[in-house]
Amino acid sequence: MDSSATPLLDRIAEPADLRAMSDHTLERLASELRSETIAAVSVTGGHLGAGLGVVELTVAIHAVFDTPRDRLIFDVGHQCYPHKILTGRRDRIRTLRKGGGLSGFTKRSESRYDPFGAAHSSTSISAGLGFAVARDHGRDVGDVICVIGDGALSAGMAYEAMNNAGHLGKRLIVILNDNDMSISPPVGAMSKHLARLYAGEPFQDLKAAAKGAVSRLPKPLRLGAERARGLVKGLVSGASLFEDLGFSYVGPIDGHDMGTLLEVLRTVRSRADGPILIHAITRKGKGYPPAEKAADKYHGVARFDVATGVQASAPASAPTYTKVFANALAAEAEADPRVVAITAAMASGTGLDGFQKRFPDRFFDVGIAEQHGVTFAAGLAAAGMRPFCAIYSTFLQRAYDQIVHDVALQRLPVRFAIDRAGLVGEDGPTHAGSYDLGYLCNLPDFVVMAAADEAELMHMVATAHGIDDRPSAFRYPRGSGRGVALPARGEALAIGRGRILREGTTAAILSLGGRLGECFAAADRLAQRGVSTTIADARFAKPLDRDLILRLARDHEVLVTVEEGAAGGFGAHVLHLLAAEGVLDRGLRIRTLTLPDRFIEHDKPDTMYADAGLDAPHIATCVLDCLGLGERRLYPVLALVPAA
Amino acid sequence: MDSSATPLLDRIAEPADLRAMSDHTLERLASELRSETIAAVSVTGGHLGAGLGVVELTVAIHAVFDTPRDRLIFDVGHQCYPHKILTGRRDRIRTLRKGGGLSGFTKRSESRYDPFGAAHSSTSISAGLGFAVARDHGRDVGDVICVIGDGALSAGMAYEAMNNAGHLGKRLIVILNDNDMSISPPVGAMSKHLARLYAGEPFQDLKAAAKGAVSRLPKPLRLGAERARGLVKGLVSGASLFEDLGFSYVGPIDGHDMGTLLEVLRTVRSRADGPILIHAITRKGKGYPPAEKAADKYHGVARFDVATGVQASAPASAPTYTKVFANALAAEAEADPRVVAITAAMASGTGLDGFQKRFPDRFFDVGIAEQHGVTFAAGLAAAGMRPFCAIYSTFLQRAYDQIVHDVALQRLPVRFAIDRAGLVGEDGPTHAGSYDLGYLCNLPDFVVMAAADEAELMHMVATAHGIDDRPSAFRYPRGSGRGVALPARGEALAIGRGRILREGTTAAILSLGGRLGECFAAADRLAQRGVSTTIADARFAKPLDRDLILRLARDHEVLVTVEEGAAGGFGAHVLHLLAAEGVLDRGLRIRTLTLPDRFIEHDKPDTMYADAGLDAPHIATCVLDCLGLGERRLYPVLALVPAA
Repeated sequence: MDSSATPLLDRIAEPADLRAMSDHTLERLASELRSETIAAVSVTGGHLGAGLGVVELTVAIHAVFDTPRDRLIFDVGHQCYPHKILTGRRDRIRTLRKGGGLSGFTKRSESRYDPFGAAHSSTSISAGLGFAVARDHGRDVGDVICVIGDGALSAGMAYEAMNNAGHLGKRLIVILNDNDMSISPPVGAMSKHLARLYAGEPFQDLKAAAKGAVSRLPKPLRLGAERARGLVKGLVSGASLFEDLGFSYVGPIDGHDMGTLLEVLRTVRSRADGPILIHAITRKGKGYPPAEKAADKYHGVARFDVATGVQASAPASAPTYTKVFANALAAEAEADPRVVAITAAMASGTGLDGFQKRFPDRFFDVGIAEQHGVTFAAGLAAAGMRPFCAIYSTFLQRAYDQIVHDVALQRLPVRFAIDRAGLVGEDGPTHAGSYDLGYLCNLPDFVVMAAADEAELMHMVATAHGIDDRPSAFRYPRGSGRGVALPARGEALAIGRGRILREGTTAAILSLGGRLGECFAAADRLAQRGVSTTIADARFAKPLDRDLILRLARDHEVLVTVEEGAAGGFGAHVLHLLAAEGVLDRGLRIRTLTLPDRFIEHDKPDTMYADAGLDAPHIATCVLDCLGLGERRLYPVLALVPAA
Repeated sequence: MDSSATPLLDRIAEPADLRAMSDHTLERLASELRSETIAAVSVTGGHLGAGLGVVELTVAIHAVFDTPRDRLIFDVGHQCYPHKILTGRRDRIRTLRKGGGLSGFTKRSESRYDPFGAAHSSTSISAGLGFAVARDHGRDVGDVICVIGDGALSAGMAYEAMNNAGHLGKRLIVILNDNDMSISPPVGAMSKHLARLYAGEPFQDLKAAAKGAVSRLPKPLRLGAERARGLVKGLVSGASLFEDLGFSYVGPIDGHDMGTLLEVLRTVRSRADGPILIHAITRKGKGYPPAEKAADKYHGVARFDVATGVQASAPASAPTYTKVFANALAAEAEADPRVVAITAAMASGTGLDGFQKRFPDRFFDVGIAEQHGVTFAAGLAAAGMRPFCAIYSTFLQRAYDQIVHDVALQRLPVRFAIDRAGLVGEDGPTHAGSYDLGYLCNLPDFVVMAAADEAELMHMVATAHGIDDRPSAFRYPRGSGRGVALPARGEALAIGRGRILREGTTAAILSLGGRLGECFAAADRLAQRGVSTTIADARFAKPLDRDLILRLARDHEVLVTVEEGAAGGFGAHVLHLLAAEGVLDRGLRIRTLTLPDRFIEHDKPDTMYADAGLDAPHIATCVLDCLGLGERRLYPVLALVPAA
């Protein structure tokens, strides 16, 4: 098929095929790989800009190194689509992020070319060091190459890893993919070092090549006031943070120049004798004009038209929870100068970019630094401010100890706005917000809320604002609200009080959070079977509404709790309560529906929740089973025996 | 009382009294403060070396700054005893770490001179930045001074905080208390910068003073091959990691020279206009020869004789769990070259210092860097090694996201040795291992064990070694074992199987972990009341032993679970199981005894467990209550309504 638009790429079955190609052919191959990446993502949506920025780098690494024996570890994994195309997954690349399709991230179970999965940031150097040490202990590991972005270096974990890697002195290759697209602090610290090429003695003969590379850098990469200043300062001070941490430093090099990349990687491969950092300057969205022109460089996109770059717009629906939260917080901030907002490199994702514009001095993006962000918020609270810390459920896991040690133990009124609670769809299990109920509900004095709809979220923002003597948190799902009418302003809820939304006589469903609609749908199904169902919204996972729970237990034949979280959270505490109160002594048909004891693969959220047994049919079936009216037991039970 | 040995100190009711004293008087006061600190700790035991290293620094800070309006934040807090003596707590200093007495750490509820509590490391700069920002928003905050050790700088959190502080540019004073006593990597990175005094332009006139300080440094501080090399390299490269992160840098200064300290602090106070780092060289244990001579510089000591330094030795008893673990792991390592051990700055605390000596190339102390340590272990596991990650329960909280994202999601066989599970005594609530069962038991495929005695611990080490297809963890208490006979070698347990240790007919107590002895004692009490009690040891919190649990429920009138952890852990999962199985439908007198929903203050562990309701009397009373035989309900219930 000579008419193929990608004749070179069509010949690549695996990375070994690259190694027979000339440098010039590789350059042309990269161009085809870029086209194929654009074409694929135009169909699937997903992370585009990051992948386009590392097309040449990905080709060069696979061409120079002996993957998969040499381990290539991408940090975060947003940028791995070109890698997937080259490593035997091209035939499935248009299934990216779809149910049953390829993951949007690297994943060990998907390919032997993915030695270490990712999705959260800043883990690659730690993992890579593990492989490097294992090599020294006789494991069959070749070189280890970690590709990490400049943004990921703002996380302390990356610093911890470099500190340890520099100390151990093992051969380890870290490629800093510097696209200058992240928040300013790490760039500020790092850009000072851009010109520091000449210190690593084993690499003296790289000088010429790299010097050439610098002069070949396109203008926009070299200018920009801060970066230029940093360059000069770097030359004057003459040291690199990386060298301070024990790494040899090579760079900066043009990350889109195939000749330079191949030369540098080959030299490093033949001569490195310890940890080395290669500083590559790249451009996010490179080679696709609509992406290069966009402010976010097409970080995450919907399906789009390749010719125009116009993305498919989602059908108009209710505002997102994210948007409702951000507006509600802005309203609180308008009225109260002590309200401040903290986020960890997620200004846009948490909706706080608007807050930032309106209240720039009360908005703090701390970088990918959840640990610091939470304790910073604790300090603000200790000094009498009213901090709202907006972090996705899955990323808040990074600050768990700070929540326990700095916030809860000191009973400081930090407010946690926990976005992306529950299953999140295309991003899959790495991004699921499954655990926050479990890890917050057993912290003394914490108030933990979950919003059943977007109006409830407004009330919970107001409630949290008013809780000034202890920590509080409210969680809410990813995506659009349920389309309910929104009040002008949220109103503070009574702490620890749920609400009954439908009165029934036989079964009671006690919902916490965003499954409320499914609970109503389940009740409708049950009505068809003659089962009269009470629906209650707990609102609070902590403190529990004792009176409500005891009443539901007393007045119904069946009580089912429903939550968007793993076991050990809301339902568990309801059970603890009922046990302690002696309610279980007399017998109670109770079931606690939680996320099951397995990870739910990426898919549409509705499909994932059905898989998890948390949709209306499963809820209804659970009730019918309890009543002895069921046909079969459909809801999942706990995994009791580990898989073989 | 002119005969007092501490005439100056006797005059200090609060730090303001220091501000009327001459520099020379302050120097003599410091000497008295050192004596008083030694005298107090000789009676109480506790952290001595760290406090002795900051006596002059503590006096100088309180003399120069307007505490408590100026906020002094000690990192970790080991070093705060002299501070407590100066800040109105001298009368209680001999109650340190005793029940009802002063905390061994800074604590907000204890004094307005403790603006932010600590005990875990590396939080001070984050918290301090919160205070500094609050000041700019009109809160009544003066200067903010964070005192942080060189060891604490190995944690990524400190880097995140400096990165953010440098970016924000607020006035913030960080004093690096560099006693060169921590693990090598951070010292390696930092010591390169010792000589970099001259870059901070606003401090040109400090040159002379600080230069003098350097020349006055005692010889041992200036020599040492590595440090000297670093000094030279620092001079050549001419940049400081701190300056790279946006801090002005002053130092190094002699942290025991009162004149220098006062001069530097006064200048900084009058002229700082952004974040500034003062690098003070101190000596841990300074001024007390037995401490200065000891390898650990009397980091944590028992009561001791002041004249000789001889510490009271604990009465001979069973070996500690820590020791038993370390020996068992060494036995596994002896037989299997793939076994490696990872710890986070706790070689001695985890007992692995012996392992380190025997297997130096298979031992990795990553620094105070739990996040990195866990993902490093995950990388080792992915490459086919058999990593054991030994971290205290409370510190493992720092790596929660890495456990979820890098270990559990990838089902990598990292083995977690979780020391200090449950309540830990004198270190109090900041060090309690309360939450690991909660945050591990809901992770798919994890195997979670808890040792009932030290022989069980040996078996669990062997069991974990054999679990090569998924993550596993075993937890064990602080302190001595129960004195049981130890096998020559641990044997792998059947996964997910508990054991029945005493057969009874009426009540069943299902214990997980170290409360087993109390459960037997409770059963003996119950026998006196005519209640025949079955005692079972669950061994596994995950996977649960379904058959055992169902049998216990079926064959007894009462089932009580007992664990050394917060609600939402083992007992919660037992309840989830019984609900899902329909066992609760028929009625079951079940109670789940967990740590209560409040923090337990420091005391002797037995007293703390009695306070928590997890001792034999409470367990027995709980059973009697369930049977309707109780006099009163003694065991604590969940806190349902928050305190006002």
